[in-house]
Amino acid sequence: MSGAFHLEKTSATSQARAGELLTSHGIIKTPVFAPVGSQACVKALTPDDLKEAGTGLVLANCYHLYLRPGIETISALGGLHRFMGWDGPLLTDSGGFQIFSLAPLARVSDEGVSFRSHIDGGVHHITPEEAVRFQEALGADIIMALDECPPSDADLERVDTATARTKQWAERCLKAHQRTDQMLFGIVQGGLSVTLRQQAASEMAALDFPGYAIGGLSLGEPKSATMEMVAATAACLPAERPRYLMGVGAPEDILEAISLGIDIFDSVLPTRVARNGALFTRPGRINIRNSAFSRQDDPVEADCPCYTCRRFSAAYLHHLFHAGELLAYRLASIHNVSFMNRLLGDIRAAILANRFEALRASFLDSYHQTDEGIRQEQKQRWLAKRRFRPPEW
Amino acid sequence: MSGAFHLEKTSATSQARAGELLTSHGIIKTPVFAPVGSQACVKALTPDDLKEAGTGLVLANCYHLYLRPGIETISALGGLHRFMGWDGPLLTDSGGFQIFSLAPLARVSDEGVSFRSHIDGGVHHITPEEAVRFQEALGADIIMALDECPPSDADLERVDTATARTKQWAERCLKAHQRTDQMLFGIVQGGLSVTLRQQAASEMAALDFPGYAIGGLSLGEPKSATMEMVAATAACLPAERPRYLMGVGAPEDILEAISLGIDIFDSVLPTRVARNGALFTRPGRINIRNSAFSRQDDPVEADCPCYTCRRFSAAYLHHLFHAGELLAYRLASIHNVSFMNRLLGDIRAAILANRFEALRASFLDSYHQTDEGIRQEQKQRWLAKRRFRPPEW
Repeated sequence: MSGAFHLEKTSATSQARAGELLTSHGIIKTPVFAPVGSQACVKALTPDDLKEAGTGLVLANCYHLYLRPGIETISALGGLHRFMGWDGPLLTDSGGFQIFSLAPLARVSDEGVSFRSHIDGGVHHITPEEAVRFQEALGADIIMALDECPPSDADLERVDTATARTKQWAERCLKAHQRTDQMLFGIVQGGLSVTLRQQAASEMAALDFPGYAIGGLSLGEPKSATMEMVAATAACLPAERPRYLMGVGAPEDILEAISLGIDIFDSVLPTRVARNGALFTRPGRINIRNSAFSRQDDPVEADCPCYTCRRFSAAYLHHLFHAGELLAYRLASIHNVSFMNRLLGDIRAAILANRFEALRASFLDSYHQTDEGIRQEQKQRWLAKRRFRPPEW
Repeated sequence: MSGAFHLEKTSATSQARAGELLTSHGIIKTPVFAPVGSQACVKALTPDDLKEAGTGLVLANCYHLYLRPGIETISALGGLHRFMGWDGPLLTDSGGFQIFSLAPLARVSDEGVSFRSHIDGGVHHITPEEAVRFQEALGADIIMALDECPPSDADLERVDTATARTKQWAERCLKAHQRTDQMLFGIVQGGLSVTLRQQAASEMAALDFPGYAIGGLSLGEPKSATMEMVAATAACLPAERPRYLMGVGAPEDILEAISLGIDIFDSVLPTRVARNGALFTRPGRINIRNSAFSRQDDPVEADCPCYTCRRFSAAYLHHLFHAGELLAYRLASIHNVSFMNRLLGDIRAAILANRFEALRASFLDSYHQTDEGIRQEQKQRWLAKRRFRPPEW
């Protein structure tokens, strides 16, 4: 039955869970990581690349697709699965977060939200009902209620208002949602207030969604604050429904959030850092541009079964990045997506075998976390590239 | 036996030929088109993509690889085939053309050529003997003698000197060449002078190379002049050796040159125009960015067996180009390379079946040649992108 979540196991020593979420396009084995394909494409990758890398869920974005190529176009072409050629489980975000983060001049009222397109400046207005209607037309297996996502430094009053409005919108989304082959998830906001998070989670839980997302986190706040909010929120959500932490991200953060009871993750991180030459390996993130790799005949990770590592040496990847070859971005993305999928698969197996804590300890023991300096340098490189990119790129 | 060219058939009504060229990495069925992977990578494509698209020969460039990552690095990593993961027939250009077209301040003497790297401005000096030694270290199946390639508007004296020097260098290359598992091709220069071309071709023929290239053409001169030079040169080359027209290119030009007796082609054209959204189809080159394709559920070419056309609609490609998704470049390149390989395969079959003229007439009848305006617009788009591209891209 589509929409059923089967909780197979909860860890005895933490909140970590393993489960299966049935969708119209296959079973999602949780915990799961979804690479992000905002524009109906995970950057540089085909659906076949994603499948070969072991991807169990892909995220696309209603906001981007609404602006380009347009909901009606995708609908006329048979829906999002068919349009992008991905026949596995698919999730669309409602656009709430993107409207408040990407679009200039977003203006919110109880009715809905007005914004200007970040592409051409055109003015648009979206209501909760429309967000559902658009996502029904796209046809993803999991769709999200429209939420108001205040900035991470918003004051408590602003967060309180946004959280209350998000709840009202969630009710309207539930009412508007008609397709029975899709799951509509509610999103819990509440900023960095434990009280607001608990209240919002309890109110959302009362609305009886088939799944719940935790939004408004990982926006620049300290990681300890993120995890405090995740713990407080997850504790107020029903155990028998899947929990989705939006926008996280790094392997170490995912491990932590899984231990707090999260089942679903998405983030641009693995593919974005890949395009800057940062590759995940068990000992930590490496920079393939580093001259240490210029003559490494072995692949990036010796025992990695991904296409990139099976086929090419680290030296070749190093060369492709230095030569500015487009192929570099694809090969690096394949490796990172594959790394994430295998990590989540290993975690799932560990939870089922009662050895999650051991895996977590051994992973964190050997995985050198990216220090803030490197993170910032790579982020600056990414931003610089964005600035210089001509429209065609 | 590596290096043997087996001429299967010569057309009764033209000079068109079908043959087989034996190499250490497989048989090249001619006529053949080689996509260009200057930096040990055909842009945006893997060796698996190339193989699946039916590629029979790949070109890489000694000039680029000498500068980055360096000949010694590739040699230490097992040679070029292994480095780039391509186990089929491989050809390297000597770098002559690139030194004279890409590198600033090239200074030529009888001894060799000095130039500055187009990457970091470093000064380099290459002799004919070194060009051979480098290409032996890379290990391609077909390697090229070092030639002097004057600009297309050079005066007759300059062309005469360059042609004479190219012949002397060819003799030195022959003497320096030791690997018996490689074929060293001589390059015929001679500018736009029939007399010089005939003389150069006869002199090169006397040196008894296992194959001959025609260089210094397709540099901006009128197409009629290109073809006049090809005809004059090919007529002076031995029938039993393969003939390679460097840097051509467009489907209609390849058909013409095949009718003049050419067996091997290379060009960046199919992959370069692909990255600008120009896709080859039997009715002519289309611009996938055109709004006519925004809702085309059919692939770019209905009967095309390439990965792109089997898997994705024209509307999806249109979207990827407008959205600036990297995947667009790969999918378009796959289609164009596949188109070229199938065209050459069809031509070969037609020659063998005594129906080359019929195929040529029917192709040219239905194929709308790209007019000069579109060609120029697409070239400007490419140049603009090059200018704006930051070092990482």
